[in-house]
Amino acid sequence: MTDVTPTQRAQAWLTRFEAALQAGDGPGVAALFGEECYWRDLVTFTWNLHTAEGRADVSDLVAARAADVQARRFVLEADATEAGGVTEAWFTFETAVARGRGLLRLKGDEAWTLLTTMTELKGYEEKEGTRRIMGAEHGAQRGGRMSWLERRQAEQAALGTTEQPYVLIIGGGQGGIGLAARLRRLGVPTLIVEKNDRPGDSWRNRYKSLNLHDPVWYDHLPYLPFPDDWPVFCPKDKIGDWLEMYAKVMELNYWSRTVAEKAQWDEDRQEWEVRVVRDGQPVTLRPKQLVFALGVSGYPSVPKIAGAETFEGTQHHSSKHPGGAAWAGKKAVVLGANNSSHDICADLWEHGADVTMIQRSSTHIAPSAALMDLALGGLYSEQAVANGITTEKADLIFASVPYRIMHTFHIPVYEEMKRREADLYARLEAAGFMLDFGEDGSGLFMKYLRRGSGYYIDVGASELVANGSIKLRSRVGIERINPKSVTLTDGTELECDLLVYATGYGSMNSWLADLISPEVADKVGKCWGLGSNTTKDPGPWEGELRNMWKPTQVPNLWIHGGNLHQSRHHSQYLAMQLKARMEGIPTPVYRPAPSHHVR
Amino acid sequence: MTDVTPTQRAQAWLTRFEAALQAGDGPGVAALFGEECYWRDLVTFTWNLHTAEGRADVSDLVAARAADVQARRFVLEADATEAGGVTEAWFTFETAVARGRGLLRLKGDEAWTLLTTMTELKGYEEKEGTRRIMGAEHGAQRGGRMSWLERRQAEQAALGTTEQPYVLIIGGGQGGIGLAARLRRLGVPTLIVEKNDRPGDSWRNRYKSLNLHDPVWYDHLPYLPFPDDWPVFCPKDKIGDWLEMYAKVMELNYWSRTVAEKAQWDEDRQEWEVRVVRDGQPVTLRPKQLVFALGVSGYPSVPKIAGAETFEGTQHHSSKHPGGAAWAGKKAVVLGANNSSHDICADLWEHGADVTMIQRSSTHIAPSAALMDLALGGLYSEQAVANGITTEKADLIFASVPYRIMHTFHIPVYEEMKRREADLYARLEAAGFMLDFGEDGSGLFMKYLRRGSGYYIDVGASELVANGSIKLRSRVGIERINPKSVTLTDGTELECDLLVYATGYGSMNSWLADLISPEVADKVGKCWGLGSNTTKDPGPWEGELRNMWKPTQVPNLWIHGGNLHQSRHHSQYLAMQLKARMEGIPTPVYRPAPSHHVR
Repeated sequence: MTDVTPTQRAQAWLTRFEAALQAGDGPGVAALFGEECYWRDLVTFTWNLHTAEGRADVSDLVAARAADVQARRFVLEADATEAGGVTEAWFTFETAVARGRGLLRLKGDEAWTLLTTMTELKGYEEKEGTRRIMGAEHGAQRGGRMSWLERRQAEQAALGTTEQPYVLIIGGGQGGIGLAARLRRLGVPTLIVEKNDRPGDSWRNRYKSLNLHDPVWYDHLPYLPFPDDWPVFCPKDKIGDWLEMYAKVMELNYWSRTVAEKAQWDEDRQEWEVRVVRDGQPVTLRPKQLVFALGVSGYPSVPKIAGAETFEGTQHHSSKHPGGAAWAGKKAVVLGANNSSHDICADLWEHGADVTMIQRSSTHIAPSAALMDLALGGLYSEQAVANGITTEKADLIFASVPYRIMHTFHIPVYEEMKRREADLYARLEAAGFMLDFGEDGSGLFMKYLRRGSGYYIDVGASELVANGSIKLRSRVGIERINPKSVTLTDGTELECDLLVYATGYGSMNSWLADLISPEVADKVGKCWGLGSNTTKDPGPWEGELRNMWKPTQVPNLWIHGGNLHQSRHHSQYLAMQLKARMEGIPTPVYRPAPSHHVR
Repeated sequence: MTDVTPTQRAQAWLTRFEAALQAGDGPGVAALFGEECYWRDLVTFTWNLHTAEGRADVSDLVAARAADVQARRFVLEADATEAGGVTEAWFTFETAVARGRGLLRLKGDEAWTLLTTMTELKGYEEKEGTRRIMGAEHGAQRGGRMSWLERRQAEQAALGTTEQPYVLIIGGGQGGIGLAARLRRLGVPTLIVEKNDRPGDSWRNRYKSLNLHDPVWYDHLPYLPFPDDWPVFCPKDKIGDWLEMYAKVMELNYWSRTVAEKAQWDEDRQEWEVRVVRDGQPVTLRPKQLVFALGVSGYPSVPKIAGAETFEGTQHHSSKHPGGAAWAGKKAVVLGANNSSHDICADLWEHGADVTMIQRSSTHIAPSAALMDLALGGLYSEQAVANGITTEKADLIFASVPYRIMHTFHIPVYEEMKRREADLYARLEAAGFMLDFGEDGSGLFMKYLRRGSGYYIDVGASELVANGSIKLRSRVGIERINPKSVTLTDGTELECDLLVYATGYGSMNSWLADLISPEVADKVGKCWGLGSNTTKDPGPWEGELRNMWKPTQVPNLWIHGGNLHQSRHHSQYLAMQLKARMEGIPTPVYRPAPSHHVR
C-alpha cells in the first residue's frame, strides 16, 4: 500500500472537517484536532478575532456557530507540504455570506493549528481586476454628466456636512489611512480626522534622524506596495510623502487640521455624536461607527519627579524631541533605555552632546540586521519574495501561529541571536547595561505584543553604549530635578541642560477617557497585550490582543493600530466587520472578549 | 528519430547565432535568417532603435557591430513554444557592456523576427530588489548626518543653480515624468521644466469630460503600476493626481511654472545653454543632454480661413476648449472629425447645444470595447495578466512585431471589427459619414503610428452622429467665416455661436524651430511616422518612428513621447542611451537615421 501523500492527508482532513461542520457536530470536529490544538478564526466563523484553544473550545465554537455559518466548499489551493512531521495546507472555503482562505497544520492526521480568515463578503466584492469600474461612461446622456473631479468634490463637500460618514476614523496616520482605503474599496462612506496639517505629518514631526525600524517588505500599505527600489529602512519624511500621496490617490476623505474633542453615543438615533474642530470651526459629525486609529501608544507617559518645575534647562517627552542639533557641547540626560531613548541618545552624541542614558529596568536589544535575517527573513525579505511568499501569504503565515505558542517559535530565533551577537551583548553588560531577552527568552516581538515596549532595535546606539560614548547609569532612576542638574536615586548628581523623558506611553484607552468618558474607557478596558502574566501584561490569558481590530465591550466603538504589518493585515478584517454591519448582515459575535483591566 | 522540440530548435538556432556573431561572420548570421526577415535591435547592438530588414541588412549589421558588441551567453529563459509553424523563444544575453533580453520567432529553422533589447548596463544596474539602498545608515558618526529630507532639499536647491543637470527634459507630462524616473534610478542628474502650475495639469486643463482613451493595463507608468481597482478609462483629473504623486514619490526634480524660452548648443563647452523663466525669474541651465517631451503633437494647427477676424462668436482650437457647459441652446460648429472633434461634439450635445460636425476627409472609427477586446486584449487586459503576460512582456511582444509587417497583424483585427460593428458602420455611412479603416485596412494603430491622427476611438459620439443628434456636414470645408455664421465650400451657410477648430497639430519639430532655431528643426526633420507612403506619412520607408527615443541628426538632442505604453517602454531605452553617454561608455550609432522631410 502506498504512503498517504501530504495532499491526500490534508484533503481527507478537510473532507471530514466539512462534513462534521455541516452536521453541527462539535465533538466530531474536536476529535479531528489534537489534544494540543488551536483554531484561530478571523471573522468568518466568529465575527470576532478569536482563538479557540483545545478541543473543548473547538467543540464549543462549532456548537455555537456552525449552523449559522454554513461553511462549505473547503478546497485545497495547492498541494500540501510536509516537513518535520507537520503537514501544511492552504485552502479556500465559503460560508453563507462570505469567502475565506485558511492555513492548516496537521500532526499526523490531527489538526494542530487551523487558521480561517475572511477574504470577502459575497455580493460586496471589491471592484478590482475584472470587476474594476470602467471610469468613463461610454455612450452619451443629455443633460451632461458630472466628471470624476466634480463627483469627488461633491462627495468631499457633502461628507460630514449634508451626509454623514458611516465610519469616522479618529487619527490619520498609516493605520487610519490603510483602513480607510479598505473601506473605500468596500463602498463604506468613511471620513478620517487628523489634527496635523498634512497626511504624513505624524512622521514628519518626529526627530530628524528617524527611519522606520521595520524593513520595507514588512511595511507595505494595502493595495499599493512600495516600488522595488524603496529603501530598506524608510526615512521619516519619505514615508510621510508616501502616506500623503496614498491618501490622495486612494481617494480618501481626509480632514486635516481637525481635532476631535468629544464623542458620545446617541442611543435614540443609534449613532455617535462627535464634536470636532476643523480649521478652527466646530463641526458635529454623526457616524454609525467610530474607530480610534491613534497608534499603538496612548498619551505620552511622563513621570512626575520632584522639582521638575524648577528646572532651568529644556525638558520634554521623547515624542516632542526635535533632534540633537542644538546640543553640541551641552549635557543631555535621557531617562529611559528603550527604543526612543537609544535613537535620541545616538543622535545627541552625533551632534556632539554629552549624553547620559538612565536605565531603570532591563532592555531587550535586537540588532537590526540579525532581526531582519533571523526573525523576518523567512517571510518579509527579497528572498521571501523570490520564494513566492507574497505579502498576503506572509501575513497569513504570521497570523496562523497561535499567540499561545508564538513564543516557542521565537525562542530559538533569539537563542541564535544571542550566539551571533555575543560580543556586543558581552560588551553591553560589561558597560553595566541591563539586558534581557524577554522573560521567557522569546525576544522582541513577544515583548512588543505583550507590552508594546521594553526593547531597542539596534541600529547603532548599542555600540555607543558599549564603548562608553553614550554614558550609562543603570539600576537607578531620577530622584529629584534641580535647576541645573538631576539627582539620581543613588544620590549622585548629573549636570543637565536637556532632560528627555523617553518614558513611553500609556494604554490606548486613555484617549477614550478624554474623548468619550472615563466610564467608556473603563468599559473598553486596557488595549493591547495578551494576558501573558509577564511585566505590564497581567493575566488572565486573552488569546488575542486586547480590543484590537475586533468588537469591544462598547458597541460601534473600535480600535485600530499596530505596526505597519499589523495595520495592513488587520485592516482587512476590521473593514469587513464594519461593512457587514453597514449592509445589515447579521454579525453575532462569538465570545466577545470581556475586559479584565481598566488601563 | 524523435522530432525536434521547439526548445531544441530555438536552442540550436541561438547556439549557431552566437557562434557566427563571435566570428563576426555577417553572411553566416544572415544565413540563419529567412529571406523575409527582420532584426529589430533596441540599443544593444546598434546604440540606436533600428530594424534590419532582409539578409543583406542583417549581414551588414553584424559586420559593422559584432566585434565591438561581443554578444554572448544567449540563454533561453524558458521552454520555446510553437504555434502555426512559428517557434517563439524568449532569451537573455550579454554584451561587453550590457545585459539584454530578446524574443525570437523562427519559421522552420530560419529566423523570421528577432528582437534584441537592452535591459541594463553592467556596473550601472538600478538599485532595486536585493540592490536597494538601506535608507538608514546604521552605525553612528560624529558630526551628525543629513537626513533624507535635508539631502533632497539640498539636491533640489543645487540642481539648476550651483550644479547643472546632465539631462534637461522640457515638458513635465507623463513622458517627461516616466523618463525622469528611469534616469533617477540610473543615477543621472535630471531636471524637468514644465510650464503649468503642477504636475498633471496638462491633463487637468483639458475639457471636462475627457478620460484616457486607452485602457488601464496599457497605461502603467514605469515602476509603479496603477492599483488593481483603477478604472479602465481613467478620468483626466485622476491621472493628473497620479502624475503629481508619482513625480513626488519617485523623487523627481521638477520645476513647474517654468517656461523654456531658448536653447542653443555651446560648441566650446560641449553643452546646451537653455534659457528658462521660472516663476517669472530668468534662469540659465547648462545640461549636456536636452530632451523634448512635449507630447505626440506639435503646435495646434489652426487653418487660416477668410473672415475669421470678423467672427463675433467664440472660436478656439480644440486644445483650448473647456467643455460644453456654456452652450445650451446655442449653435456650435466643430471643424474636423477625428478624436477631439467627436469628444467635443458629444459633450456639446450632452449640454444641449445644437452641434454640427464638419468632416473634410474620412475618419477611422474604432469602437472602444471592440478595440480593447480585439486589438489589445491579448496583451493588455485582465485576461492577459491572468495568462502571465506582465506589462514588461506585453511591451516586448508588441515591440517584436516589425513595423514593416505590423499592418498584416492588424488587418484581420479590423476585418473582425468591421463584422462586429457592421450595424454602426452602416448607419454612419447612411448618415453621410466618410469612414475608412486605414489605407490598407490596418486600422487604428497604424494610422496612429503613420500620422498620429485620422481616427476616433468611439466612446459614444458615433451613435450620436449615426442617429443625427450630432449634425454632420461631410465632404465640405469652411470657405468663409462671417460675423454670425460660417459658409461651407458647397455654398451653404450655418449659423454659429461657437466655432471649434478640431484640426489637429503640427509636427513635433515645430517646437524645435521656436525653442532652438529653424535650422536645427530642419536638421532634425519631421518627427513621428514611418515613411509608409500613406496620407501624411510620405516615403521613403524609415523602419522606425522618425526621431523618437533615439539619436537625432543633432547630437545631444532627443525627442521623447508617444502614448502611455510607448512612453513607458521606450523611456527604458532612451534612459540607457543617456546613461551610457554620461558614463563615457562608447555609443557608436549604427546607421543614424537621416532626415528626409523638414516638417
